Amino acid sequence: MIRFSVLGCGRIGTMHARNLARHPQAQLVSVFDVFTKASDAMAAELGVRAAQSVDEVLADSEVDAVLIATSTDTHVELITRAARAGKAILCEKPIALDMEKVKACWAEISALNATVMIGFNRRFDPSFRAVHDRMTAGEIGKLEQLIITSRDPGPPPISYINVSGGLFRDMTIHDFDLARYFAGDIVEVQAFGGNLVDPAIKAAGDIDAAMVTMRSASGVLIHINNSRRASYGYDQRLEAFGEKGMLIAGNKTATSVQSFSAAGTAQGDVVLPFFIERYADAYAAEIGNFVESVAAGKTPLTSFRDGAEALRLADAALESFNTGRVVKLG
Amino acid sequence: MIRFSVLGCGRIGTMHARNLARHPQAQLVSVFDVFTKASDAMAAELGVRAAQSVDEVLADSEVDAVLIATSTDTHVELITRAARAGKAILCEKPIALDMEKVKACWAEISALNATVMIGFNRRFDPSFRAVHDRMTAGEIGKLEQLIITSRDPGPPPISYINVSGGLFRDMTIHDFDLARYFAGDIVEVQAFGGNLVDPAIKAAGDIDAAMVTMRSASGVLIHINNSRRASYGYDQRLEAFGEKGMLIAGNKTATSVQSFSAAGTAQGDVVLPFFIERYADAYAAEIGNFVESVAAGKTPLTSFRDGAEALRLADAALESFNTGRVVKLG
Amino acid sequence: MIRFSVLGCGRIGTMHARNLARHPQAQLVSVFDVFTKASDAMAAELGVRAAQSVDEVLADSEVDAVLIATSTDTHVELITRAARAGKAILCEKPIALDMEKVKACWAEISALNATVMIGFNRRFDPSFRAVHDRMTAGEIGKLEQLIITSRDPGPPPISYINVSGGLFRDMTIHDFDLARYFAGDIVEVQAFGGNLVDPAIKAAGDIDAAMVTMRSASGVLIHINNSRRASYGYDQRLEAFGEKGMLIAGNKTATSVQSFSAAGTAQGDVVLPFFIERYADAYAAEIGNFVESVAAGKTPLTSFRDGAEALRLADAALESFNTGRVVKLG
Amino acid sequence: MIRFSVLGCGRIGTMHARNLARHPQAQLVSVFDVFTKASDAMAAELGVRAAQSVDEVLADSEVDAVLIATSTDTHVELITRAARAGKAILCEKPIALDMEKVKACWAEISALNATVMIGFNRRFDPSFRAVHDRMTAGEIGKLEQLIITSRDPGPPPISYINVSGGLFRDMTIHDFDLARYFAGDIVEVQAFGGNLVDPAIKAAGDIDAAMVTMRSASGVLIHINNSRRASYGYDQRLEAFGEKGMLIAGNKTATSVQSFSAAGTAQGDVVLPFFIERYADAYAAEIGNFVESVAAGKTPLTSFRDGAEALRLADAALESFNTGRVVKLG
Repeated sequence: MIRFSVLGCGRIGTMHARNLARHPQAQLVSVFDVFTKASDAMAAELGVRAAQSVDEVLADSEVDAVLIATSTDTHVELITRAARAGKAILCEKPIALDMEKVKACWAEISALNATVMIGFNRRFDPSFRAVHDRMTAGEIGKLEQLIITSRDPGPPPISYINVSGGLFRDMTIHDFDLARYFAGDIVEVQAFGGNLVDPAIKAAGDIDAAMVTMRSASGVLIHINNSRRASYGYDQRLEAFGEKGMLIAGNKTATSVQSFSAAGTAQGDVVLPFFIERYADAYAAEIGNFVESVAAGKTPLTSFRDGAEALRLADAALESFNTGRVVKLG
Repeated sequence: MIRFSVLGCGRIGTMHARNLARHPQAQLVSVFDVFTKASDAMAAELGVRAAQSVDEVLADSEVDAVLIATSTDTHVELITRAARAGKAILCEKPIALDMEKVKACWAEISALNATVMIGFNRRFDPSFRAVHDRMTAGEIGKLEQLIITSRDPGPPPISYINVSGGLFRDMTIHDFDLARYFAGDIVEVQAFGGNLVDPAIKAAGDIDAAMVTMRSASGVLIHINNSRRASYGYDQRLEAFGEKGMLIAGNKTATSVQSFSAAGTAQGDVVLPFFIERYADAYAAEIGNFVESVAAGKTPLTSFRDGAEALRLADAALESFNTGRVVKLG
Repeated sequence: MIRFSVLGCGRIGTMHARNLARHPQAQLVSVFDVFTKASDAMAAELGVRAAQSVDEVLADSEVDAVLIATSTDTHVELITRAARAGKAILCEKPIALDMEKVKACWAEISALNATVMIGFNRRFDPSFRAVHDRMTAGEIGKLEQLIITSRDPGPPPISYINVSGGLFRDMTIHDFDLARYFAGDIVEVQAFGGNLVDPAIKAAGDIDAAMVTMRSASGVLIHINNSRRASYGYDQRLEAFGEKGMLIAGNKTATSVQSFSAAGTAQGDVVLPFFIERYADAYAAEIGNFVESVAAGKTPLTSFRDGAEALRLADAALESFNTGRVVKLG
Repeated sequence: MIRFSVLGCGRIGTMHARNLARHPQAQLVSVFDVFTKASDAMAAELGVRAAQSVDEVLADSEVDAVLIATSTDTHVELITRAARAGKAILCEKPIALDMEKVKACWAEISALNATVMIGFNRRFDPSFRAVHDRMTAGEIGKLEQLIITSRDPGPPPISYINVSGGLFRDMTIHDFDLARYFAGDIVEVQAFGGNLVDPAIKAAGDIDAAMVTMRSASGVLIHINNSRRASYGYDQRLEAFGEKGMLIAGNKTATSVQSFSAAGTAQGDVVLPFFIERYADAYAAEIGNFVESVAAGKTPLTSFRDGAEALRLADAALESFNTGRVVKLG
């Protein structure tokens, strides 16, 4: 049994706390939020303690692991302190928006041998996972091309954009990690961006649509497309094209119903609205992988290094977007 | 080269005449219609002779085969006369609406050894044919259940209903033949009918919706459903369920386009509107089978006996519908 | 909060107990099974009491409701005793295999005004439910035809067949209830059965494949097909055809992955293996409907009468199968 | 009636000649090939004259139009001579492999006002066309992203690679034209290439896989992926993503059959093998557009300028591939 405290009781912290409460090998001990209303409500719902401070949580000998779901600017400090306190750590992505901070964090914690997982939920999606495992088992032969489609249903508020680190570090970062999961380390990055969705995003200095092309060390060609808006819902697809075949993972809908009328045939539901719904199974599986990893003393599927590498790719994409050149990575 | 005359220059005769004109081993020699305007137009379009009478056609030593696309009430007489004249015969379904006339026709022509094909186009549809051939090759093991969906896009005029012989003999007759093609001879028939579409059809003494259940001698359970209306187009599907698998043949659409919007996902085109479009390939293949059969002196895939058996099943369905009993066939 | 005891700790009782343990408005208090090993294990897993007898459960003033998941032959007695004890009742289908017992049970309990729900899980399947609700909202106009496909992945052991009441009462009973949910009360039933799957089932006096045709009082034509085996998994589909459109609810697969290779394109996963997986959401929603109904003092969506009517249709189908006649229901 | 001569009786010339023979407003007068065996065979099959020289064709006052299906290195000369001879011209893509030659050709012929069409068949594919027309009609709002998938079933012989001008000019050129058809003129091009399929292609100095990203003047982001091999057939897809919706045009299969078995569900046929089959309808429609354009004295849908622009994009892609920089076009 791994005993947890959840730091941050916003939308995603709440979801994680509920998953922890349900997991047979996890025990939720306490929750914390700087807004005590939020932590009190979650504590009451789940019948656990509302901690009054991070110090209290980190000092608690009954807490084995912390799940960090606070704002991005606190991640590095909390990871560092939790590692020093001997806790296992599951931290929401990204580690930070600044590569230097990520490196400094690693310099601090690497010797502490803490179990650290970064919450790249998509590796745990049953459909993406099945494609990965069938590919690894040889079903499509050598992977040659990878196409990742990742479009949000609608743009976030500008207040979020302002602290997001920009599209590549906030949104594409998931796709960078997914690309590495399938194709391994990346050696070339090229990126196009555009402002097609919301003029306010442009005014905020960010882009709202992108296309990224990459090449892996193993020669795989990778395409990622992003948009901050998709009229039909949260569009999350993946195409793995290999020498012997192709595997495509499609979207998820609430039902299997298809309608037929004078307007057309076989129309399905709109796709599930956003990440909480689409990746519900993935988030639960992510917790499972973390719990197993802590119990077995092994590195989780999405490690600190994975978090660092995804940010490195985001930075490279931004550089390519700004310079019009392919960025080569060592 | 088989030399043809087409009798009947209506919608379906015109379609056949054009297919004959295009077939490399067929030669269209003449066309005939009691409405000389129709035959003159077709003759002009295709550069062939407009015959002035059936006698002229049957006496023409340059005509090897006749394609009979006249009204149903003339079929038996034309088949008989053509057989006597030594012509090969491709006659549109049904042979007749009265089983006694069919038997009398056979008594007349059986000794003449004419090649006679009845135009059950669906056996030649590439998708239904592929299901049949894959089933025969063993892909799904022994066939256990067969589901045939056959719905017209909209009801015909009442003038047509009045001479149609009723839903079972006019519309379901295609499904009866298809059932026999997949499951062999039928030993039990049970039918439900209803008036769900058009009150005028009820007033005319006919039904406009039906469900038929049958059992083949080999034990296959068969379901047919019919409607004189389908909002989304001409609905023609088939499901062959066997011990090792299932094969489904779906509808055809004009394009492979799918649309995604706030209203739903993956909506395809409406299905092709009606038989001329849906079965365009089938009609061409039917001509091909007839030409080959005449050339090789063998029985076509859809023989006179097939025409007689389909009518027998239609009569059995009508009897079951009227009596509420299963009708057993010897 | 509705407090429950679960009677019967087999496969389906276990599943229900876990759902109850998870439901926010339900509280699982105790479980019972004549095999104390089973009830002890479930009690331990869920942290509840293992009752020693039905009497203990029914006498327990802290139990508001019982979920009956024992063998069919005990249902009537347990429903009756629980109703007398003032408990709300959620009983697995069927109420009984004998219509007279069902009627006698009702005569006993009707005056007691117990909340009684019969566990017809399919009405709660999100896809079937969506079709129902969209139909009710008018999307397809008047319902005209209903096609229900219901095929088990493989035959049960003969020991089960022997006490099942036969295919119509054991398996088709779900489809009869689903038909009533969509089309209302039924006035005509006709049934074909066959032995296509397992000779041992024939030896046991039962059939293993069936096709049933029905007509509702409102004129809807209904087709049900059943098989005790489907090579590709648990096949559960529904087609609602109306004057303005058609809605089809398809099967569920574990992932959205499609594979493309030299063998073919767009191949999906096999469908979910059996009812526990396919109807996982439905079982949870069923509990939800029961809890709400008890709390609000209203009749659940699947009432005692629904249980009785489904059995009446099963008996009618059996009679039709035996006599070759349409059975008319008043 | 437009009277044609076909120059070049190889695979694609033969296909065009048969389409011309079938078109109601076209008349095939003669065919020519330097291999007289090929032209004699085609002339015999279609009942037309086998011309003995290009001079003979161009001097023939009964020839209104020439269809040039000879090898690429002859295109410029034949276009120029035909234009001078006052013939309308339908020339297979590409105009040439060298932009200077294309410009010189235009300098020669622009004043002659010849009708010149370059055979970019894909604009005439019914599915791509439907996406285009529905987009133009506003169904998806403003186009934002365009994804073109274009993979050959297998690599051509090295002898072909050697004279092809390389992947971008030979294969991607179709996708460049399709991109312009949907998104208008292009202002930025970036390309990745790889050798993933056949080492002999690398040895010949060419690539066999590519990913291209482009931006149109109107801001559309465009992705193209190419491979010289696809195990499941000729993969030709297009995704048009707009502010209000998305339209996807998929592959074509020979039948609508889906198979279900223990191996998986809903497996369709492999896609149509290659361009002759996939684009059969498109080639016929292309002839139709040319015939209409000549008759009406208007520019065909795929003009000489379109041919030049597509080559310009191929050259830009090659430059980007070689330099690792975005290439900007004026």
